[in-house]
Amino acid sequence: MKTEFYQKLKQECLKKESRLCIGLDIDYDLFPNSIPKSLEGSSKFIKMIIDSTSEICASYKLNLGFFEQFGYKGYELMENVVEYIGDKAITIADGKRGDIGNSSKKYAQSIFNQIGFDSATVSPYMGSDSITPFIDDTKFGAFVLCLTSNSGSRDIQKKISNDRPIYLSVLEMLKELKQDNIGIVVGATHEEEMNQIRLEAPLMPWLIPGIGKQGGNLEMSVKIGNKNGAIGIVNVSRDILYYKNSTDKDIYSRTLFYHNEIKRFLDE
Amino acid sequence: MKTEFYQKLKQECLKKESRLCIGLDIDYDLFPNSIPKSLEGSSKFIKMIIDSTSEICASYKLNLGFFEQFGYKGYELMENVVEYIGDKAITIADGKRGDIGNSSKKYAQSIFNQIGFDSATVSPYMGSDSITPFIDDTKFGAFVLCLTSNSGSRDIQKKISNDRPIYLSVLEMLKELKQDNIGIVVGATHEEEMNQIRLEAPLMPWLIPGIGKQGGNLEMSVKIGNKNGAIGIVNVSRDILYYKNSTDKDIYSRTLFYHNEIKRFLDE
Repeated sequence: MKTEFYQKLKQECLKKESRLCIGLDIDYDLFPNSIPKSLEGSSKFIKMIIDSTSEICASYKLNLGFFEQFGYKGYELMENVVEYIGDKAITIADGKRGDIGNSSKKYAQSIFNQIGFDSATVSPYMGSDSITPFIDDTKFGAFVLCLTSNSGSRDIQKKISNDRPIYLSVLEMLKELKQDNIGIVVGATHEEEMNQIRLEAPLMPWLIPGIGKQGGNLEMSVKIGNKNGAIGIVNVSRDILYYKNSTDKDIYSRTLFYHNEIKRFLDE
Repeated sequence: MKTEFYQKLKQECLKKESRLCIGLDIDYDLFPNSIPKSLEGSSKFIKMIIDSTSEICASYKLNLGFFEQFGYKGYELMENVVEYIGDKAITIADGKRGDIGNSSKKYAQSIFNQIGFDSATVSPYMGSDSITPFIDDTKFGAFVLCLTSNSGSRDIQKKISNDRPIYLSVLEMLKELKQDNIGIVVGATHEEEMNQIRLEAPLMPWLIPGIGKQGGNLEMSVKIGNKNGAIGIVNVSRDILYYKNSTDKDIYSRTLFYHNEIKRFLDE
């Protein structure tokens, strides 16, 4: 029997004393000359990253677009990467899916059962029935977009309805589903809003992008994301993968830097 | 030089006197016994549908989840189907993507340049910078979710902000982008709201799902969607693909039924 998603996520974080998620974004524009710009080169690069970091990394996030850009062969590489990670860490399919129930079921089937991810990011715009197929099986989890790290987050998410921003309406909708395998995406670039979101859902897991190149606040992300025993994992992609010359030593040392920073903030 | 998306869509609709979009949803649960429940069976089935209908069908919509459910081999089938359709009709990648700009670019690259779709459905929750990568190249188009056909559309889309529902805020955001290769998704199940949406964006193309099994109103969809020379295409999936015994004759006759109904409403 597979462990429930929430337990699995928590155990992984506590066991490794880690709240780090590494985003495995394949970006040829950022590859150093030493890595061949090919699917084979990407595959070796990603496996090297996993080998170098899995002892101190709780989770790996695959942004599906970075694999889909190569068509079905990129999709196959994604499947191989998820298989390679196996039980070494929690896997997140960052595809921001969401459709009418009948179609969301197919996405969940694809991500969880076919490819084997532990969890998926989901867009809330289509409402409750577009999300439930991703949480019906509690062995798997969903991180639903709440307040994202990009500038466009002000366009819809911060609109005010009934004196409250839309991203808090999303949070209410999720709370009504009453399941502990639902988490949310909260961008590290929104320090001011984090406290309110944590207050309204004290134990909901967070996936926190926006650290590194996007300039989010690591300290606040770790402290508020993990307040009172909640689990908040912070994602770093480019700033680990493309650190210095992207050698195994570079990647390990940058990962260790984040690992130690996160531990320090957790202990404070 | 490839034609601009808006021109291509309009020409296809006028040439065929059609506003029909057929959704190529592979659903083994609905396959009659005569069609093998395999990727090869699905491939033959889909090509038969295209051969039987392309003269009176303006557009084919591939819901990506229905292909992704089979992993990379389903993804490869999707690529083959898009290639098979070629210039026979407009193709829509119904994946409801949307991510931070950097990642949305990868999705657009995948859908338009790698696979070869003409257009894509896009989710607006992450705001303007998540949408622009899908419309930067005007040879391709985006249909952004505005008011969707499912029951969950009330959860976020119908929240009121500044006396107006959120789906109209989405419309305003899209109008500010001032490009004619942006369309919207308007569910056929929302007769009452359609007039207002058409009024606020008189010429914006619509993709209208929710006809057939979902019970949407075909007449209002055609009339309001195509008011004053605008282009509104109505999608039918299950009610054509799984009509009677799903033979080529069944599928053609059901397509012709919709074709004639649509023409009648256009002429009234």
